[in-house]
Amino acid sequence: MTARLKAARILYATPTQHIAALGTPLKCYHVATVWRGENTQRGRYREFMQCDFDTLGTRSAAADVETVLVVHDLMRAVGFEQFTVRVNNRQLLTGLLETLDLADRATPILRALDKLGKIGPAGVAEEMVAVAGTTHDQASRVLELAQITGTNDEVLRQVEPLVAKSETGTAGLVRLRETLRGVLAAGVAQERVVLDVSIARGLDYYTGTVVETFLDALPRIGSVCSGGRYDNLAALYTSQALPGIGASLGLDRLLAAMEELGMVDKVATPAEVFIPYFDKTRLHDYLKLAARLRGAGISVEVYPDPKRLGQQLKYADRRGFRVAVIAGADEFASARVQVKDLEEARQQNVPLEDDAASVIAAVREILEA
Amino acid sequence: MTARLKAARILYATPTQHIAALGTPLKCYHVATVWRGENTQRGRYREFMQCDFDTLGTRSAAADVETVLVVHDLMRAVGFEQFTVRVNNRQLLTGLLETLDLADRATPILRALDKLGKIGPAGVAEEMVAVAGTTHDQASRVLELAQITGTNDEVLRQVEPLVAKSETGTAGLVRLRETLRGVLAAGVAQERVVLDVSIARGLDYYTGTVVETFLDALPRIGSVCSGGRYDNLAALYTSQALPGIGASLGLDRLLAAMEELGMVDKVATPAEVFIPYFDKTRLHDYLKLAARLRGAGISVEVYPDPKRLGQQLKYADRRGFRVAVIAGADEFASARVQVKDLEEARQQNVPLEDDAASVIAAVREILEA
Repeated sequence: MTARLKAARILYATPTQHIAALGTPLKCYHVATVWRGENTQRGRYREFMQCDFDTLGTRSAAADVETVLVVHDLMRAVGFEQFTVRVNNRQLLTGLLETLDLADRATPILRALDKLGKIGPAGVAEEMVAVAGTTHDQASRVLELAQITGTNDEVLRQVEPLVAKSETGTAGLVRLRETLRGVLAAGVAQERVVLDVSIARGLDYYTGTVVETFLDALPRIGSVCSGGRYDNLAALYTSQALPGIGASLGLDRLLAAMEELGMVDKVATPAEVFIPYFDKTRLHDYLKLAARLRGAGISVEVYPDPKRLGQQLKYADRRGFRVAVIAGADEFASARVQVKDLEEARQQNVPLEDDAASVIAAVREILEA
Repeated sequence: MTARLKAARILYATPTQHIAALGTPLKCYHVATVWRGENTQRGRYREFMQCDFDTLGTRSAAADVETVLVVHDLMRAVGFEQFTVRVNNRQLLTGLLETLDLADRATPILRALDKLGKIGPAGVAEEMVAVAGTTHDQASRVLELAQITGTNDEVLRQVEPLVAKSETGTAGLVRLRETLRGVLAAGVAQERVVLDVSIARGLDYYTGTVVETFLDALPRIGSVCSGGRYDNLAALYTSQALPGIGASLGLDRLLAAMEELGMVDKVATPAEVFIPYFDKTRLHDYLKLAARLRGAGISVEVYPDPKRLGQQLKYADRRGFRVAVIAGADEFASARVQVKDLEEARQQNVPLEDDAASVIAAVREILEA
């Protein structure tokens, strides 16, 4: 089961049960672990986290435009400036195949086209003839469409005569034009959203607009955010006609890319205060002190074992705590503790009351400095 | 695979690969979907969301105390005041079984004891004799332990002679006493944490402290937050000795309970602004206006289809949008839009500039009112 099918299963197993109550159009999102059946490789893990968003219950071009906008805006929100959203419409190919009398071979032709980047046009033509049973002439007509390049307007102009005889192809062209213009109208930079007629997205449930997103610095990792319109997918799970469009961000792959590009800072999330377990007879006093600090909204870790203080402070250093509150037998006897700023290597002697008010104040002063 | 075993697999498949680099003690948490193999019932779904937290790499009583504290504090943080955390230590039973020469029958005896609430002491005794092969006298000695009740101190006093001949049993008693006192020292109300020697938690990977959490108002739904110490569990996944203690909040079951108790408000999360798709020739103008508002940090939904305005406003009403920004042919001609406060049913006519500054200001005024 592909990730999107899994997502669809979840989507249609839940919202569509209640679609009458929820009403359409319905926008929803879903972040969850999914699994791939295909071979794994770098950035293509067996188990991965996918972030889906979908608009259900409308065939409107507005939803196509907004899907591209969400892809664009989320890539920027994550921190990317150098990326390209590649847009195509499955209806162009469907239209051409209708014209060539190949409508019933769409699936093997899509699979062959999906390999264009890997095996080149000659390889794709060979596969179309061998597997999809096209003639050489038909294969080259299909490749002619898939290899059109240029600015968005140039591509639209070149595609037009190839699909003009098909109603489906013409509808795809109109939708593509409307989608690309809508994205520009919403203020997206022209170079970020590119019409790419070679994008097939091998999965046969896409019926219209398809989207892939490539990082300019790491094109070889493939698309990090992909999706499309699937006006018949819901039919697998419900008797209701429920057109939809959506896309998924592959979080793990994107993170792998961000790590490679040095965009991910290592972060540590220690508690704010470290309390060494120094006097082994005093565990309950340490726990009480921790409870007082926590009650004041300060996060605390009490070291669990009464090891040597030096060893515990080394641990504190490795974890990166900001403050240590240190109390041994002498301190407890005089009802005072050491509040140590571990970053500045400064410490002060603070009275320890039952409500730990002075300790809380001293800790806060360091944390807020 | 039980949920905790699944959690352990994840835990030991990830942090322990890197345990040398991460260092111990290690505290970690994990929120994920897990599945149960056993029969489903109300509040016991096939697929559910579990929130785990664990402390690895220490056998210290401090970790036992803090685990109970986290359970207690998280129940209060979620909004419960009327609940009881039931604590036991598996070593009490282990010690008694050693004394009775039944150490090798621990698993079937635990399974029988786990049914105490359902089939009563006579049924449990019968099962112990039939399945675990104990004598009637042995079975009644085990039941004697499991049926001790009273205040925490009373129970501790009554348990002591039963386990005194076993080193394991004595260690369990010491740990229980230390854990319960530690929890009190940290300021938890005495009645919230109860020693309950009948708690077995049927799973045989628990080695020490075990914890269950019951809602006073809904005891029949079972424990909503459970866990315990599993000093040998890691041995299934790593050659390293890695003692640990942790617990899991069953989020779905807790939510089911909270719904039953009326603790969950229905929430809707519409965008702040609704833009009807009123003039069908102006989609790009609506998308541009939406982009301007979004650029100012205001969330916007554009209706995707140019349906009748009344129908769109009915949708807006059902979804609960606060503001609608309405523009038709007349408005675009005069470069003005209607900004409508849907809650107050008031609207104003606002000029529409290229940067939509006046619209943004009018919307903000309503949202911030």
